[in-house]
Amino acid sequence: MSQKGTINVAVENIFPLIKKFLYSDHEIFLRELVSNATDATLKLKHLARIGEANVELGDQQIEIKIDKEAKTLSIIDRGIGMTEDEVQKYINEVAFSGAEEFLEKYKDTAQDSGIIGHFGLGFYSAFMVADKVEIITKSFKDEPAVHWTCDGSPQYTLEKADKTEFGTEIVLHISEDETEFLEDHRITELLNKYNKFMPVPIKFGTRTETLPKPEDAKEEDPAPTQEVDNIINNPDPAWTKQPADLEDQDYKNFYRELYPMQFEEPLFHIHLNVDYPFNLTGILFFPKMTGDLNIQKDRIQLYQNQVFVTDNVEGIVPEFLTMLRGVIDSPDIPLNVSRSYLQADGAVKKISSYITRKVADKLKSLFNNDREGFEKKWNDIKLVIEYGMLSEEKFFEKADAFALYPTVNDTFFTWNELIEKVGELQKDKDGKTVLLYASNKEEQDSYITAAHEKGYEVLLLDSPIVSHLMQKLETSKENISFARVDADHIDNLIKKEENTVSKLNEEEQEQLKTAVSDVIASTNYNVQVEAMSSDAAPFMITQPEFMRRMKEMQATGGGMMGMGNMPDMYNLVVNSNHELISKIVAAPDGKKQELIKQSVDLAKLSQGLLKGKDLTDFIKRSYDLVN
Amino acid sequence: MSQKGTINVAVENIFPLIKKFLYSDHEIFLRELVSNATDATLKLKHLARIGEANVELGDQQIEIKIDKEAKTLSIIDRGIGMTEDEVQKYINEVAFSGAEEFLEKYKDTAQDSGIIGHFGLGFYSAFMVADKVEIITKSFKDEPAVHWTCDGSPQYTLEKADKTEFGTEIVLHISEDETEFLEDHRITELLNKYNKFMPVPIKFGTRTETLPKPEDAKEEDPAPTQEVDNIINNPDPAWTKQPADLEDQDYKNFYRELYPMQFEEPLFHIHLNVDYPFNLTGILFFPKMTGDLNIQKDRIQLYQNQVFVTDNVEGIVPEFLTMLRGVIDSPDIPLNVSRSYLQADGAVKKISSYITRKVADKLKSLFNNDREGFEKKWNDIKLVIEYGMLSEEKFFEKADAFALYPTVNDTFFTWNELIEKVGELQKDKDGKTVLLYASNKEEQDSYITAAHEKGYEVLLLDSPIVSHLMQKLETSKENISFARVDADHIDNLIKKEENTVSKLNEEEQEQLKTAVSDVIASTNYNVQVEAMSSDAAPFMITQPEFMRRMKEMQATGGGMMGMGNMPDMYNLVVNSNHELISKIVAAPDGKKQELIKQSVDLAKLSQGLLKGKDLTDFIKRSYDLVN
Repeated sequence: MSQKGTINVAVENIFPLIKKFLYSDHEIFLRELVSNATDATLKLKHLARIGEANVELGDQQIEIKIDKEAKTLSIIDRGIGMTEDEVQKYINEVAFSGAEEFLEKYKDTAQDSGIIGHFGLGFYSAFMVADKVEIITKSFKDEPAVHWTCDGSPQYTLEKADKTEFGTEIVLHISEDETEFLEDHRITELLNKYNKFMPVPIKFGTRTETLPKPEDAKEEDPAPTQEVDNIINNPDPAWTKQPADLEDQDYKNFYRELYPMQFEEPLFHIHLNVDYPFNLTGILFFPKMTGDLNIQKDRIQLYQNQVFVTDNVEGIVPEFLTMLRGVIDSPDIPLNVSRSYLQADGAVKKISSYITRKVADKLKSLFNNDREGFEKKWNDIKLVIEYGMLSEEKFFEKADAFALYPTVNDTFFTWNELIEKVGELQKDKDGKTVLLYASNKEEQDSYITAAHEKGYEVLLLDSPIVSHLMQKLETSKENISFARVDADHIDNLIKKEENTVSKLNEEEQEQLKTAVSDVIASTNYNVQVEAMSSDAAPFMITQPEFMRRMKEMQATGGGMMGMGNMPDMYNLVVNSNHELISKIVAAPDGKKQELIKQSVDLAKLSQGLLKGKDLTDFIKRSYDLVN
Repeated sequence: MSQKGTINVAVENIFPLIKKFLYSDHEIFLRELVSNATDATLKLKHLARIGEANVELGDQQIEIKIDKEAKTLSIIDRGIGMTEDEVQKYINEVAFSGAEEFLEKYKDTAQDSGIIGHFGLGFYSAFMVADKVEIITKSFKDEPAVHWTCDGSPQYTLEKADKTEFGTEIVLHISEDETEFLEDHRITELLNKYNKFMPVPIKFGTRTETLPKPEDAKEEDPAPTQEVDNIINNPDPAWTKQPADLEDQDYKNFYRELYPMQFEEPLFHIHLNVDYPFNLTGILFFPKMTGDLNIQKDRIQLYQNQVFVTDNVEGIVPEFLTMLRGVIDSPDIPLNVSRSYLQADGAVKKISSYITRKVADKLKSLFNNDREGFEKKWNDIKLVIEYGMLSEEKFFEKADAFALYPTVNDTFFTWNELIEKVGELQKDKDGKTVLLYASNKEEQDSYITAAHEKGYEVLLLDSPIVSHLMQKLETSKENISFARVDADHIDNLIKKEENTVSKLNEEEQEQLKTAVSDVIASTNYNVQVEAMSSDAAPFMITQPEFMRRMKEMQATGGGMMGMGNMPDMYNLVVNSNHELISKIVAAPDGKKQELIKQSVDLAKLSQGLLKGKDLTDFIKRSYDLVN
């Protein structure tokens, strides 16, 4: 025994599958049918243009109609239509893609016709929502119209129809379970989601338009109105045009079209337009960012030939750019494949790195052409740029040209400007440049003031991923390090050669240290007696850079395992040269503790560490001091 | 012309579709093939049990094998097998579901056999990842084995095979694009994801097991080892058993099986088990919650007959319970339908409300059986319960039996206990009960202290949605309202009849008000001179309840539009009967401003409103006061 044969597909078995299984979302049927109608329209237009169809195209729009009583939804086009033979071929044979065949036949001329069809299976998605489907169609050729009917069993009937105009009408008899698709608002919602930018005008109902009053109208006369077709789409969206033909306002208007619920204007846009080695058009917008990274995602919409596909662009757009908004339109992105496959796909990789490069180039030119405007936008765009610097090496390299480092006084430096500005002053005794920064101007005010008194620049680095970025800069750039202004007292932050002499001898220092430690009575504070300038604060709380940064990095993903659970550790720096300290050293025991207690509370206050009952007691004590 | 006909499906057109289109995720093929193998095994078991198959079942396991050189992946079972006729029927005819037919034929006895198959299409998913597929199969009946081969074109060959044992071996010749499926770690990952709890043991490779040393072994001898089958699944997971047969530790072990990366133990579990009017089994766990609502979602796994389907249970489980973890297994949940359809489906609605009821009942019995233990867990479960009270009316009604209202002193009241406890003391002059609360013990310490001095209870309500819950309680319960302890000074929070007389006359009050307003110089503060007890604080900052709560509600979704953008407004309450105020009134101008300045700063401190340069200056001034 050895035999060959052909696997057989029984239509009665496939049909239920198509109904249940074809798309997980039933609503897709409308996108598919409108896409078919669009293709039919564009095909006829193309044939007319090349002289193969001798017809008066007229007003080629697609109409969607609901008849609630008859429980039908109709999709009507004035496109190429079908002859009886074509119905036999394209409808009665499942999965024979007419679009592919058309593109093959007219491949020399049809490149830019915008025809969509992939599988030719879309039509059958009608059965996901309809018990019965009718097709009334007349070809642009001089052949009689036909009327096809099928109730979802694989049996169809085919009759002559008396339709006289070319085009196709699909009538769906919506099933009991799917009556949502007979509601105006639901169909409006779907047309808006999937067909808002399709290339043929789509009419759904009418709307009332107010006309200007005639000259001789009385004041009390109402303005005249008229019913006009309600066209739900914009067949020529901005991304299909040439950048040279668009003004800034056109981009803003398009943003409003895309996101009608967004009240803020975008900060700027990037027009993508490439046709080799892949086809891609689109417009990306930088929106104003809020702090929440998650809310921002999945807002870029992916289209193929102006048909909406998805707003999940993970794997197609580099991750740091998924915070942007806008549209990407490319027929070259494989759909219905797994995300992991997508990320490994060569074409998709090229698209992704093209987008990264375009964004970097645009940022560079924005910075060069209008530095002041760019600085004003920095706070809203920094998260994207910093995230990009961290996640894409190519972007990191290009970012030196536009990434900014703002100070607490709102001066913005590029990296090179910054290094030049801090110069010799912020080099420590080993020649390493120490860049000082604050994460919060309000909370770290006293430390910032101390740094400014030394003439140091203090950066304001406050985005959630900045600890990762500093780590990256410290390993990529040479001989620099970052330190937050409260990481140590100012003389230690940037260690110079000189040494201040202490007013206290070693024994006095030891005794002071013990006295202060006893008052604090907490293992989270490490008391350090230091000889500083007598002008510096008498007590000060600092938090070592390394451990704090590791904890921050772990909180945002990364850093060292287990650091997140360590308690916060602080140094309490006592300035042995301050007048108050001499007074404390000299005071008798009870008074000494009282002075230390009030002083330590003040030091805690400047780090936001005095809370609860301790704060209530401090306030009470302080009112007594005033009174 | 009028004709009838049957729609024709050409296999050459359908086959490419199956390959590209059947599932968006290629990895699904393995789940489908292992499910088929499981069905084949269970069918034979069933036939043996009812005496229709006279075979020695032996060790009925399924084996998965990779051959990297041959680039094949094999799935081998010892199940029912197929005769030549059955291959013709089930394989060479696409979409003929063998499982459905089997269940129909043996419907009286096969109810609990656990057979999975739905569409019979799963086998063809093999072509998503393989260029060529072979089947070597021998039926349990006394018929020769057959060998079927197909290279993905619809042509197959069928030959005799020399397999002697019953069962089926599927050999996939993995295609160039899909070599990930020849990697051990990838297959392990997939088996773990989809087949971890399937009812037949699945072997993938071997592992080394250490044996006890023989008695006469020397100390330096290594312990003997042996290779054993590596079974990747647990065929009898806890949820398939009866609750009566399980100990608490069994549930904890199952939690560890489900979430090997979770180190925390679950707080408690709920075993679901119903077979009318729908079939549902499962175990839900309350995990320890972190603050982040989003991270917690999508952790409940949905199974059908022990096959993993998805971890997105949106629409099936009530939203407030999607923060839980665990497993739901039900053959009655329709798949491959849109989420909106799912939410409207009657059976799914019943499942959802059954789960809600079971969770409420379990919470009630936990509370009744071990109140102390329940109180200890409250902080970890309150978010789920409060969210449930807000979103499901039925749950809100049942929650009076177990929802807790903790005080800042860690006393836990039910609603009725709370109302009884605060009694007459917290009724205002109109007979309305005012429930006082703090959102942060540390930050609101001085206000809490003031309320405690009056003998009032102060609740600690600190979950992110609590402002919504209070709104709900205020409208559902009678004659009560909530006020945060810092919403007004204590005599105004619960207004009684008595009136304190002011030490200052009206003119002095006016002058004081002007002087204080001048020092504050901000429109965000409204100065109020009030006659309070002389023991109360001289200055105090309060924030009216209504506006603050509306802003909070808007921040978490809800509240009044536009409130989120309003500036924070505060009242600065000046206690005209405090000693310090008399002193301020009497002081000369310069000294007066100095006293007011320091006092206002102290009041701001107790609300955390003194920041930046103001705080730095205050600290400097205060060191001078100490010195």
